[in-house]
Amino acid sequence: MAVRGLPFTGRKGRSNTIEDREDAFGNLLYHYLRTGEGTEIVERDDGFIDTAWGAKAYFDPFEEWPDHHREAMRYVRGKVLDVGVGAGRVALYLQQRGHEVWGIDTSPLALKVCRERGLKHTRLMPATQLSSRLGTFDTIVMMGNNFGLVNNPRRAKWMLRRFGSMTSSDGRILADTRDPLHTDKPEHLAYHELNRKRGRMPGQVRIRVRFKTYATPWCDYLMVSKGELEDILHGTGWRPSTYVDSVSYPGLYIAVLEKA
Amino acid sequence: MAVRGLPFTGRKGRSNTIEDREDAFGNLLYHYLRTGEGTEIVERDDGFIDTAWGAKAYFDPFEEWPDHHREAMRYVRGKVLDVGVGAGRVALYLQQRGHEVWGIDTSPLALKVCRERGLKHTRLMPATQLSSRLGTFDTIVMMGNNFGLVNNPRRAKWMLRRFGSMTSSDGRILADTRDPLHTDKPEHLAYHELNRKRGRMPGQVRIRVRFKTYATPWCDYLMVSKGELEDILHGTGWRPSTYVDSVSYPGLYIAVLEKA
Repeated sequence: MAVRGLPFTGRKGRSNTIEDREDAFGNLLYHYLRTGEGTEIVERDDGFIDTAWGAKAYFDPFEEWPDHHREAMRYVRGKVLDVGVGAGRVALYLQQRGHEVWGIDTSPLALKVCRERGLKHTRLMPATQLSSRLGTFDTIVMMGNNFGLVNNPRRAKWMLRRFGSMTSSDGRILADTRDPLHTDKPEHLAYHELNRKRGRMPGQVRIRVRFKTYATPWCDYLMVSKGELEDILHGTGWRPSTYVDSVSYPGLYIAVLEKA
Repeated sequence: MAVRGLPFTGRKGRSNTIEDREDAFGNLLYHYLRTGEGTEIVERDDGFIDTAWGAKAYFDPFEEWPDHHREAMRYVRGKVLDVGVGAGRVALYLQQRGHEVWGIDTSPLALKVCRERGLKHTRLMPATQLSSRLGTFDTIVMMGNNFGLVNNPRRAKWMLRRFGSMTSSDGRILADTRDPLHTDKPEHLAYHELNRKRGRMPGQVRIRVRFKTYATPWCDYLMVSKGELEDILHGTGWRPSTYVDSVSYPGLYIAVLEKA
């Protein structure tokens, strides 16, 4: 789970990007690059805490990806924007396959990791600051649960419309997410209920990543069912053309979005 | 690392034992007993956070213990008190070997795990409430870093004297700890310096365990070098008769204490 990208607006320091002591995610990746060790700890605003997955997963080669991630790569074409590029797992694979790939992230150290691993085009910025300066993209990938970086449904609509203006007429978005309702864990069901009570979507989780003494800012991260996604897409100019469902992990899926 | 035992004095609820929402450690063990999964997350008061070890380590059979833990079992004799018994790793091994073993812990769920695993004698209490009611012990084991449960040097002296009155004339204590100064990690060296500045021992770490939405109370946990241990022992009636050093993990050791 990647807590980065956006929208750390109104923060001091480099505009909208995180400072070193807040760069828990980047420090985790950089530490892993050097030592081969590191575990991502994610804390939720109700006090729930858990290890997400090892930093290793952010570096895994294509052969070790989850089934639906591999499958989704069939839908990538042309010039690619990777939103929340992380350690460059997907971006480097696509660059290797011949695509021009731009990776953006708000984590300076994540981008340092990407560059050290050979990614040619990186930009330190949140998705909210994307503009036509980087040109027109054919595919926007939000892999590794990165559809969550839209934060909340209102911002999701705004961002999807913006993505529409940055993409070619047959542009695509690969929106990787998970159905938050697909769980029977009492701690998650209780959180959904808490969210409903405070007027948020059940899967709108407020979380931060911690690593050693680093902690990212608290940030909303949105996970949606297919029905919820379709509600969000309404009026944005995007529609789901395909759902790539995980076989190994029920509830996880990648929506391939095309222009309506 | 076990954050339990003592001295949650002045707390409401069952005297000096922790309540369920605080029983992160016990819930971790109980969850592992049922599912075979679970990772202990330990948070330090300077914001440092890390996974300690998997819950599995609390259940490991003798053959999988660290070398010096296995070696230290040679020094156990007679009736045994296990302070901070956890999932019963050591207590069950010794009971199996024929010893009468009493396990105490402040975690109700840890003791439930011990009982389900077959430990005959358990008591829900902090070490500070121990008395002659449980009889006289020949060996007190504080394994799995559990010497740390003395909290701080002043309390360590008090507790060691008390242990003196609860043990036979040739009684022993197995004090498992680690030299906190045996590290080159900047985050730990910075914490030592912080501790010195606030008049604490370098290895007097203020920590809590977190698991899901459970969090133990913040608690001092003391790790000492051999020199620091010997300073603490002075005047308590105990002296180190043997040090069992870890070969695999330099800096980790078990002090076998005998009456001076």
